[in-house]
Amino acid sequence: MGRSSEASRRGDVDAFIVMDVMERARALEAAGRSIIHMEVGQPGTPAPKTARAALAAALDQPLGYTVALGLPELRAGIAKLYKDWYGVDLDPARVVVTPGSSGAFLLAFTALFEAGERVGLGEPGYPSYRQILRALSLEPVGIPASLENRLQPVAADLEGKGLDGLIVASPGNPSGTMLNHEALSSLIGWAEKAGVPFISDEIYHGLHYGDRAVSALEISQNAWVINSFSKYFSMTGWRIGWMVVPEDQIRRVERLAQNMFICPPHASQIAALAALDSIDEMEANRAVYAENRRLMTEGLREAGFRNFAPPDGAFYIYADVSDLTRDSLAFAGEILEQAGVAVTPGLDFDPLRGGQTLRFSYARATADIIEGLRRLKAFMAARG
Amino acid sequence: MGRSSEASRRGDVDAFIVMDVMERARALEAAGRSIIHMEVGQPGTPAPKTARAALAAALDQPLGYTVALGLPELRAGIAKLYKDWYGVDLDPARVVVTPGSSGAFLLAFTALFEAGERVGLGEPGYPSYRQILRALSLEPVGIPASLENRLQPVAADLEGKGLDGLIVASPGNPSGTMLNHEALSSLIGWAEKAGVPFISDEIYHGLHYGDRAVSALEISQNAWVINSFSKYFSMTGWRIGWMVVPEDQIRRVERLAQNMFICPPHASQIAALAALDSIDEMEANRAVYAENRRLMTEGLREAGFRNFAPPDGAFYIYADVSDLTRDSLAFAGEILEQAGVAVTPGLDFDPLRGGQTLRFSYARATADIIEGLRRLKAFMAARG
Repeated sequence: MGRSSEASRRGDVDAFIVMDVMERARALEAAGRSIIHMEVGQPGTPAPKTARAALAAALDQPLGYTVALGLPELRAGIAKLYKDWYGVDLDPARVVVTPGSSGAFLLAFTALFEAGERVGLGEPGYPSYRQILRALSLEPVGIPASLENRLQPVAADLEGKGLDGLIVASPGNPSGTMLNHEALSSLIGWAEKAGVPFISDEIYHGLHYGDRAVSALEISQNAWVINSFSKYFSMTGWRIGWMVVPEDQIRRVERLAQNMFICPPHASQIAALAALDSIDEMEANRAVYAENRRLMTEGLREAGFRNFAPPDGAFYIYADVSDLTRDSLAFAGEILEQAGVAVTPGLDFDPLRGGQTLRFSYARATADIIEGLRRLKAFMAARG
Repeated sequence: MGRSSEASRRGDVDAFIVMDVMERARALEAAGRSIIHMEVGQPGTPAPKTARAALAAALDQPLGYTVALGLPELRAGIAKLYKDWYGVDLDPARVVVTPGSSGAFLLAFTALFEAGERVGLGEPGYPSYRQILRALSLEPVGIPASLENRLQPVAADLEGKGLDGLIVASPGNPSGTMLNHEALSSLIGWAEKAGVPFISDEIYHGLHYGDRAVSALEISQNAWVINSFSKYFSMTGWRIGWMVVPEDQIRRVERLAQNMFICPPHASQIAALAALDSIDEMEANRAVYAENRRLMTEGLREAGFRNFAPPDGAFYIYADVSDLTRDSLAFAGEILEQAGVAVTPGLDFDPLRGGQTLRFSYARATADIIEGLRRLKAFMAARG
């Protein structure tokens, strides 16, 4: 009996470096500096008006536990989104409302994988995939994606890796690049042939600047599809998302959700249901991001950040800065201290090559973007 | 490469039987029957007035991500509760705000245990301990607790079980019985001697009907203490709780929380902070439970349910019905269909002996308790 120390290896995950940047930015602001926030991965806008009004109207009733899979009308409303956005008929019974996409990852990974199994993920990519997998005693397998493949994995990258599953994101974070129908089909086809589960992170769907994103549900009914109200619906702090699961997995996922979460936050479910009626407001937000994106792609190039794939969606630009530095962490520190612009070093997204990349977010107000670009240009000009 | 099926063993957890009872009760109500709800483990009251007012006032600002450990003022407010309730000085830095106690279990179990490790839990007990442990590839080890020990484990029960950790709850669910200072000290002492972590689930603290509950923090600064706004503060559906961790574990838990949850629901944090100012309203709720408890202990005995330990806290009575049935599931079904009272068979709480127990909740309005007891007496009299 007994154990050597009060700590597990699985619990020894990496910190988000962006959190340290945010902390340093806050400290500078507290000391009176003006900081432009291009580090944060969230809208500056509040939840939709309809969402806030619906919750305000519901506040006097007891908001007890809901059923574990979420309010039936919310599940139906989300299913309808698949008809509206992709022309896909989706049975609401397959929609699982979750505490953010974070909750969906926890559910999917525990439902699908045994301890020790290997799950592939494209690099660069969302850092928490890797850390959540480790916390669940699973093995994240980074798949370095190339700039010629627009920083998305391709089937050839996946061979011989001994993968027990694959998670991809389109539009990607940090790259903002999308997998088109053919590219996504190819990856799903690889997973089906290999007999391993395919998880599609579609959290940035709705935020596109040319063609809309393709959902894995347009291609396969066996994919596990994860999405959220955080980005398009501007509800990050509400922690409300969803997952679409294959029909024969509903009951298993329900049991896990009952035990792991009891239910998603009730207030957030009420707000999310009403948010589905706010498409006009959300499209106005998207028009702001589109203008920000235009300013950023021009302005960053003018400042001297020239190597990036133009983003198809989301609200990020991921720049290769290997012509400027080998130490993106120190470089981001310089930019923050000297230019007063907070940006994220790439190390969160790509442990191998992130020392030579930066992520710029354009999720905030256009005035901030203009001022941030002005500062970046001045900083880079002074740097020579 | 490849795997035999799209499902993990770890994901194959049991359902909550109480959920099936609730579903059947709903179906009967939909068909026009009146049902008294003694199956649900949650207050019928809304969140505190202060909580709802604070959130209403905050709804127009963007509720983005908070820092992962929660709003600093909420952590400070929770720390102050330990001074007010137990006379314990607690550094707010040790308080981790979580998405309900459910989130705290996920954090504690991943921070503390490797896949395959064995975690002891008293039986009867909260069913999700077992299921969450299984979902995390850990091994739950049920410790049958005896009626003479008031359904709480004692140190002698723990020897030779090869435990890598222990979780206890006082007041317990379903029993409502508490560990006094001596009993809790003995269990913590056992864990410290064995060199394994001790997790104290204190979710029903504040709801006591004689002496107040003792916190593990009054005894040891190495215990992991889990609590929630769900029960005393009547905020189940808000999914907001907390955990107090040993000082040297804060940073590890922060990293896990950043990745697994990003943050607890922001709206719920605002509501919870204001809930801390609602002690008068919550004490009025507690007076209702106290009256309900008095009616229940008398009324259940009169009806013919005579074998239970008088509850010290929480809002449950856990009755041994082995003189009445060997099949609590069928018996609960009879009571629901014939008496119109929903109660929970013990199988959720005790896989071994739960076939001969029922849990009665007295969390709802007193008028419901009176009517439920009237129906139970008539049912039992007719049964003979």
